[in-house]
Amino acid sequence: MTRGRRPLILVTNDDGMFAPGIKRLVEISREMGEVIVVAPNSPQSAKGHAVTLADPIRLNPVNVFQGIEAYECSGTPVDCVKLAKNILLKNRKIDLCVSGINHGSNASINILYSGTISAAMEASIEGIESIGFSLEDYALNADFDPATPWIRTIMENILSNGMPGTKLLNVNIPHPSLGPIQGMRICRQAEGRWEEEFVEGVDPRGQKFYWLTGNFNTHDTGEGTDIHALREGYISVVPSLHDLTQHRAIPQLKSLESLNPHV
Amino acid sequence: MTRGRRPLILVTNDDGMFAPGIKRLVEISREMGEVIVVAPNSPQSAKGHAVTLADPIRLNPVNVFQGIEAYECSGTPVDCVKLAKNILLKNRKIDLCVSGINHGSNASINILYSGTISAAMEASIEGIESIGFSLEDYALNADFDPATPWIRTIMENILSNGMPGTKLLNVNIPHPSLGPIQGMRICRQAEGRWEEEFVEGVDPRGQKFYWLTGNFNTHDTGEGTDIHALREGYISVVPSLHDLTQHRAIPQLKSLESLNPHV
Repeated sequence: MTRGRRPLILVTNDDGMFAPGIKRLVEISREMGEVIVVAPNSPQSAKGHAVTLADPIRLNPVNVFQGIEAYECSGTPVDCVKLAKNILLKNRKIDLCVSGINHGSNASINILYSGTISAAMEASIEGIESIGFSLEDYALNADFDPATPWIRTIMENILSNGMPGTKLLNVNIPHPSLGPIQGMRICRQAEGRWEEEFVEGVDPRGQKFYWLTGNFNTHDTGEGTDIHALREGYISVVPSLHDLTQHRAIPQLKSLESLNPHV
Repeated sequence: MTRGRRPLILVTNDDGMFAPGIKRLVEISREMGEVIVVAPNSPQSAKGHAVTLADPIRLNPVNVFQGIEAYECSGTPVDCVKLAKNILLKNRKIDLCVSGINHGSNASINILYSGTISAAMEASIEGIESIGFSLEDYALNADFDPATPWIRTIMENILSNGMPGTKLLNVNIPHPSLGPIQGMRICRQAEGRWEEEFVEGVDPRGQKFYWLTGNFNTHDTGEGTDIHALREGYISVVPSLHDLTQHRAIPQLKSLESLNPHV
């Protein structure tokens, strides 16, 4: 894929241009290719696969990473990828899209809510091999050092050998407090859900409000799941798709086809 | 499921409380159960699976549907479902969640961008059987009459017999201009993508903007796809899931597990 020229790498995230995670991802990416960065100009965590239809979007060049073309975008992470591909890089082949490094895990069901992974997924829908990277540590001063050689290795391998059987990898890196990274595991997405709580309050104008909080909960922690790999100190790599069909249910639902309200 | 009591049906959408589509869905739902409506207080099309984390959410009772408990929510469609389940209906079992009727198709890849289907998917993650309904007509005055008996039949059937093999159905109804509805087909999600264009302009303050537009494009229109069913005048029913793992790629990527940057 890289024969004869340096690969073109699109870097994005959902935390914005000044998050330490994207800085690290740009540093790794610039070692191996030509880099363009398009990131949201405001925090876009948990924006899922949202796109901006009803408003214009702004794109402003910023000088954040020396010698690297970078743009702040007023839209969502998915908007960033659309603008990068269609406006900034029109007609150029993107060899790899990397999103992150997210401050916080996107394992299990969190892939659906995550702006980080949605950006990578949008690129994968366009046929671009894409990787979302997340570190299991929400702290702004999270330590990305132990993860760095692993991320470099994954990216180099994908750039050299492609991504057989998928266009999207959801890569999660264990919390640094778990000790040295044990290795990598190719996993399936664990079943899980958020045990929601809403903090109820009253605002200064006397109006009631609800504020979302809660705990992530999963019992699907057996071998082969991303949650299991992370708990054991391994990086979880989940090959992911955008076909949401529950194929095995198609024959089970076939009897619905005989329903007709007019008979 | 309905033994001994009327089923509890949660109705939501992404177009807000005053869209004709939700009015029709409430009318159908109230024939067969106890209904609660929670819908966004602003248009939330294409908001995907976004949730509101950084802001408080408001919930206001509204008297829109006579005799029906209804609330406007300041958040996303997914927020609506979370608040309905956790705040408004705490500890009560929801028998069915229906979202829509969306003004516009959510077939193929549009399931990912759609606020309508994301709301239903959020309920399905919580184990609630859920259906997203969409009509292939963006017009505000779209004709929901031909679809109505079919929607009623689908909902009655699911309430009586459950939803084998899945918790979420993505139901799309052909454009009324295609003539009488031919029946229902259980389908897979067609591959497809948006051919993006951005309208470029300059705002009154002299700042450049981009505005997303484009055309949906698919070559995956063979028998068995939702796009094929719709083109033939059938209602497409795609059983859907929230496990995005590309399972078949797991063995293909296994060699990545032997990579180690420190060896």
